[in-house]
Amino acid sequence: MFNELPELGEFPENWKRMHLLGLEDLTREELLILLDKAQVFRTAFDEGRRKFSFLSGHTSVTLFFENSTRTRTSFSLAAQRLGASCVAFTASTSSLSKGESVVDTAKNLEAMGCESMVVRHSTPGIPHLLAENVNCSIINAGDGAHEHPTQGLLDILTMRQRLGSLEGKTVGVVGDIAHSRVARSNAWGLKKLGAHVIVCGPSTLVSPVWKEMGVEFSHSLDAILPRVDVLNMLRIQFERQYTSPFPSTREYSLLFGMNSERLRRGKSDLLVIAPGPINRGVELTPEVADGPQSAILDQVSNGLAVRMAVLWLTDGARKRIQNA
Amino acid sequence: MFNELPELGEFPENWKRMHLLGLEDLTREELLILLDKAQVFRTAFDEGRRKFSFLSGHTSVTLFFENSTRTRTSFSLAAQRLGASCVAFTASTSSLSKGESVVDTAKNLEAMGCESMVVRHSTPGIPHLLAENVNCSIINAGDGAHEHPTQGLLDILTMRQRLGSLEGKTVGVVGDIAHSRVARSNAWGLKKLGAHVIVCGPSTLVSPVWKEMGVEFSHSLDAILPRVDVLNMLRIQFERQYTSPFPSTREYSLLFGMNSERLRRGKSDLLVIAPGPINRGVELTPEVADGPQSAILDQVSNGLAVRMAVLWLTDGARKRIQNA
Amino acid sequence: MFNELPELGEFPENWKRMHLLGLEDLTREELLILLDKAQVFRTAFDEGRRKFSFLSGHTSVTLFFENSTRTRTSFSLAAQRLGASCVAFTASTSSLSKGESVVDTAKNLEAMGCESMVVRHSTPGIPHLLAENVNCSIINAGDGAHEHPTQGLLDILTMRQRLGSLEGKTVGVVGDIAHSRVARSNAWGLKKLGAHVIVCGPSTLVSPVWKEMGVEFSHSLDAILPRVDVLNMLRIQFERQYTSPFPSTREYSLLFGMNSERLRRGKSDLLVIAPGPINRGVELTPEVADGPQSAILDQVSNGLAVRMAVLWLTDGARKRIQNA
Repeated sequence: MFNELPELGEFPENWKRMHLLGLEDLTREELLILLDKAQVFRTAFDEGRRKFSFLSGHTSVTLFFENSTRTRTSFSLAAQRLGASCVAFTASTSSLSKGESVVDTAKNLEAMGCESMVVRHSTPGIPHLLAENVNCSIINAGDGAHEHPTQGLLDILTMRQRLGSLEGKTVGVVGDIAHSRVARSNAWGLKKLGAHVIVCGPSTLVSPVWKEMGVEFSHSLDAILPRVDVLNMLRIQFERQYTSPFPSTREYSLLFGMNSERLRRGKSDLLVIAPGPINRGVELTPEVADGPQSAILDQVSNGLAVRMAVLWLTDGARKRIQNA
Repeated sequence: MFNELPELGEFPENWKRMHLLGLEDLTREELLILLDKAQVFRTAFDEGRRKFSFLSGHTSVTLFFENSTRTRTSFSLAAQRLGASCVAFTASTSSLSKGESVVDTAKNLEAMGCESMVVRHSTPGIPHLLAENVNCSIINAGDGAHEHPTQGLLDILTMRQRLGSLEGKTVGVVGDIAHSRVARSNAWGLKKLGAHVIVCGPSTLVSPVWKEMGVEFSHSLDAILPRVDVLNMLRIQFERQYTSPFPSTREYSLLFGMNSERLRRGKSDLLVIAPGPINRGVELTPEVADGPQSAILDQVSNGLAVRMAVLWLTDGARKRIQNA
Repeated sequence: MFNELPELGEFPENWKRMHLLGLEDLTREELLILLDKAQVFRTAFDEGRRKFSFLSGHTSVTLFFENSTRTRTSFSLAAQRLGASCVAFTASTSSLSKGESVVDTAKNLEAMGCESMVVRHSTPGIPHLLAENVNCSIINAGDGAHEHPTQGLLDILTMRQRLGSLEGKTVGVVGDIAHSRVARSNAWGLKKLGAHVIVCGPSTLVSPVWKEMGVEFSHSLDAILPRVDVLNMLRIQFERQYTSPFPSTREYSLLFGMNSERLRRGKSDLLVIAPGPINRGVELTPEVADGPQSAILDQVSNGLAVRMAVLWLTDGARKRIQNA
């Protein structure tokens, strides 16, 4: 019933984190451990070795205060493929005293004996608050516009598979930069690996916080197009915006959408990725999305592999810490 | 933990389908393979052998764009009893470009490594579209008013258990014929097995498509009553109809409902079945529903057995095709 | 993958119930069997032995007609930790003929082969109705204002862990007594173990039914405070009340809330418990909820242990009855 995975090797001595809260905190070495172990899981996945017993007896809870069927399903499958049980806990945010009730909810789940919690919440910092208050592993699955570390990792793993080392490479992150935890996790991770990051979008979708992160700015996709090795085409999150940040979807698509014509003007091996679900015809035309320079579905498989690596590493560190 | 099932025998050489999209496409031989294997699972179920390892390592996703707790639970239990993991993916249909987004959703689930998808959608043909676009087994759990093959199979298996061979038997399918994928799957399957099918309902609930299927028509239950060996009393699907197709529920029940008095006027061994959930007092009176000539709960157990057989057969064919 | 649990011993000869419908029916001996076995599961849980194979092959369904994520998750985890599969079935109550449709739904789930059903419904007596109509084990997870036996058991187990024997002890149950199945299950269980029970709340929240149960009444928390060994601070269930039973939440809290000042006026080892989720600042101040005299999180872990014991005992009795 379970497969073996000798390539995974010994548990890495230098991995000491029982939580994964963001990519900002990680050292370059830790980032490489994560990517290397995720690659092992991905290779095994492609070879049909998909079910392991590393986390048998472990109970993981997905504690989502925002809806996300895809991310939740990916984490749930990752946990189950490691032999863990996975329980979905759908919480409402209607309580007046949100901070308190989130901690109470997490403490309850801890008291039921769960070993890890995968948390999504609209408020930045909630995973950090939980990590301070419970003894389970906390894995951030998106906290407001702050971080979404497993998305950052799967994006970077996908780039590394196609480009090799990211040292000296230039990555453009295009779209709704202001509201994007994905852009932030990409930037933190990519910079640690020596890549140059350009965020690119309409001036209405740019936040001053980026200036402090050492990333380049642009308001013209055409201007950066010849320089980039990768374009990460963020999803326009219509549901997040209260007033329209651009005149029309059509205008956005004309200025910031990726199409065959633009693809021809980029580097010949330009890689195009995008966190799903994509709005076809908005950020990407179908020709680009389904073409050979796109790695959209590879990202999904890498997401599973990254989440397996994260669960395996944080579980191992938690056991060491709690047995010490 | 797992039971053995030697009666299942070798994988049938003549079963080559990795998808189950409808009963229309099946040969008589394929239909008999399905029914025979389902009967093996049903017999084992009755004897308490309910958990197997045939699909261990297999991940099945129920991808339902219409709600159906019962059918979904039945498929989920069937997958789990074969040793598979089963994940529920509830999709919304709000996207403008439905066709595209359904394929994208399915490709995402495929990239997460699922081996089968059980699909329900209000648009006929969606399962066929997915079968052309992914490499998982696609199992149609209802596509609009088109087909619902596992319901057809469980109805037919139930008839076969009570009547023996269906050759020369007459089956009445009564009710909302116009909107019924159940009626269509029944008709395709029953005809292949040599049964005569009569669809019967108010003239407002009859669609011209039936003329081409070689089934008989009637607008009077009382007229067909003496001739039928089985009555399949379809559920009035109040939720599907935009204008009322009959003056009142009471009138419908008087003309097309099955009650003790009508039961006495039918053949002495007339079998009454109905896809749940039934509207007691509308299609069937409680005396009929709970009486010895009803097989309503047997249908539910047969549904589980049929879905186990379908998952086992399509999985075996998929492995052969993909290893060839 | 599975742990051993030799401390559990042989299946108790005197446990003959395949259902758990309420604490009112239980003998003192049966109550003690439940508490003793739950304690075995709790001790094992604390030692990290959390996964067993006692119920492998067993399918449990949580059939909830009222929402309750916490209770449902607790039962689901309990079933899975015993090696069972657990399926959630969310039913609507919109049907006109509720009683009938609940029985039909349960019979359908039984026909799919489930061995136990964990039932929550707003109508008192629904679990009893199902127990008469299906051959699965029925476990009452709350029926209207009638009983919630596993909550009563986990409260009592928590008291017993802190106080030892409950003989001669005095337990105050404070708050919304009129609508509380928790209060009723507490009272039935505590009385059988020799404890004295005082229900305490505003006069608008008191129902005449209590007079017949042999419990003492009070409308003043301050009056009973010096006498009680335990206070069970019920949650004000704002969602259940159609007209406000007290002038303001603030007034309720002043008269019936537990705070540090009141804690000082109680016995020095007064134990405070509360069924979650608590309204911080209403029934309990945070100082009390998080203080050493509170056992709120212990209750949650005990809930899991109690549900494991209930599933194990009812399953064993069911097998004996059905094999007899």
